[in-house]
Amino acid sequence: MTVPLVPLGEPRPQRADAVRNRERLLAVAREVLAEHGAAGITMDGLAQRAGLGKGTAFRAFGTRAGIFRALLEADELAFQTAVMTGEPPLGPGADPVRRLVAYGRARSTFLMDHLQVMRATLDPGGPVPASGVEFTHTHIRMLLVQADLGIADVDNLSVQLSVALDGPLLLALHNPPPATARRVGSLEDSWQTLIERLCR
Amino acid sequence: MTVPLVPLGEPRPQRADAVRNRERLLAVAREVLAEHGAAGITMDGLAQRAGLGKGTAFRAFGTRAGIFRALLEADELAFQTAVMTGEPPLGPGADPVRRLVAYGRARSTFLMDHLQVMRATLDPGGPVPASGVEFTHTHIRMLLVQADLGIADVDNLSVQLSVALDGPLLLALHNPPPATARRVGSLEDSWQTLIERLCR
Repeated sequence: MTVPLVPLGEPRPQRADAVRNRERLLAVAREVLAEHGAAGITMDGLAQRAGLGKGTAFRAFGTRAGIFRALLEADELAFQTAVMTGEPPLGPGADPVRRLVAYGRARSTFLMDHLQVMRATLDPGGPVPASGVEFTHTHIRMLLVQADLGIADVDNLSVQLSVALDGPLLLALHNPPPATARRVGSLEDSWQTLIERLCR
Repeated sequence: MTVPLVPLGEPRPQRADAVRNRERLLAVAREVLAEHGAAGITMDGLAQRAGLGKGTAFRAFGTRAGIFRALLEADELAFQTAVMTGEPPLGPGADPVRRLVAYGRARSTFLMDHLQVMRATLDPGGPVPASGVEFTHTHIRMLLVQADLGIADVDNLSVQLSVALDGPLLLALHNPPPATARRVGSLEDSWQTLIERLCR
């Protein structure tokens, strides 16, 4: 296991009931997100639906944005676990070029599915979140080394590829995508073309 | 000439002396930037060194960040003009793959040389600036079409490549680059490897 998990938040020791309440609030948040979207989530509403006090919700997450950060963190952890210990070709065991393709496809889908949650973690006008970018970079770098393509500088190439992958979606959080984007095909297919031509 | 210039600011009709004063202040700003870096630039200092009133400097640029936006805008215009009407291989006339390589190398250098100025155009904690990203995307798309590589989806590929090019440097405005970046080679060389392998 060569890729470390990226810590997305500070772990703090918590009492068992605090942990349980937080899990319950997160589960309720997922329900509300599925039913009403991010706009439907409020501290008050969550606490009420979970049958807990508002103070408990504030102690668990700090702010409303903190709820979305907690949701994103849990999903990032599940995603990264699938990459590191899950089934091939996303997980270990497949050819590194196939894993690069699989990683980019899965990551694009993950980011697209999480745009709404990621946007809700942002402070208004704040910087683009770095969530997962370092994991993507480290993982792509490792697979490029394994693929042994005769490329001297995998450091910079892995930075460029990780930004090519995460960048269009992270930038979409703040700036509308170029008018021509996603008109013909998908970012997933385009990533596959890029990697397959680069690695042939 | 198929690539339109990206308007980076709103042109406003100005009186001849206002235009002259603004040019003079910009020239002084370039001197101070070269001598003392971005931190050395203040509205007061510029006006004094240009022998103009502080009010003239404020009318010309609005805010201190406005000075840096004006500097960046002028340099972007010169860069884009070189791409559209300058000497090949950056300008027209060379093979499209050679132009892609030349564009990426020139653009990386341009962005690295302007990081300090771009940072100074930012509002604290504000979004990543989109300066030039749309031009890069449009230009790369045009060259990919001309290169006729048999790639169906040049829309998404050109988005991914333009972000691979501009992204590492735009993100460096807010986030420190990954520790491994630029350790072995240069972003320029890495871009050339990426394009040459993609287009062979």
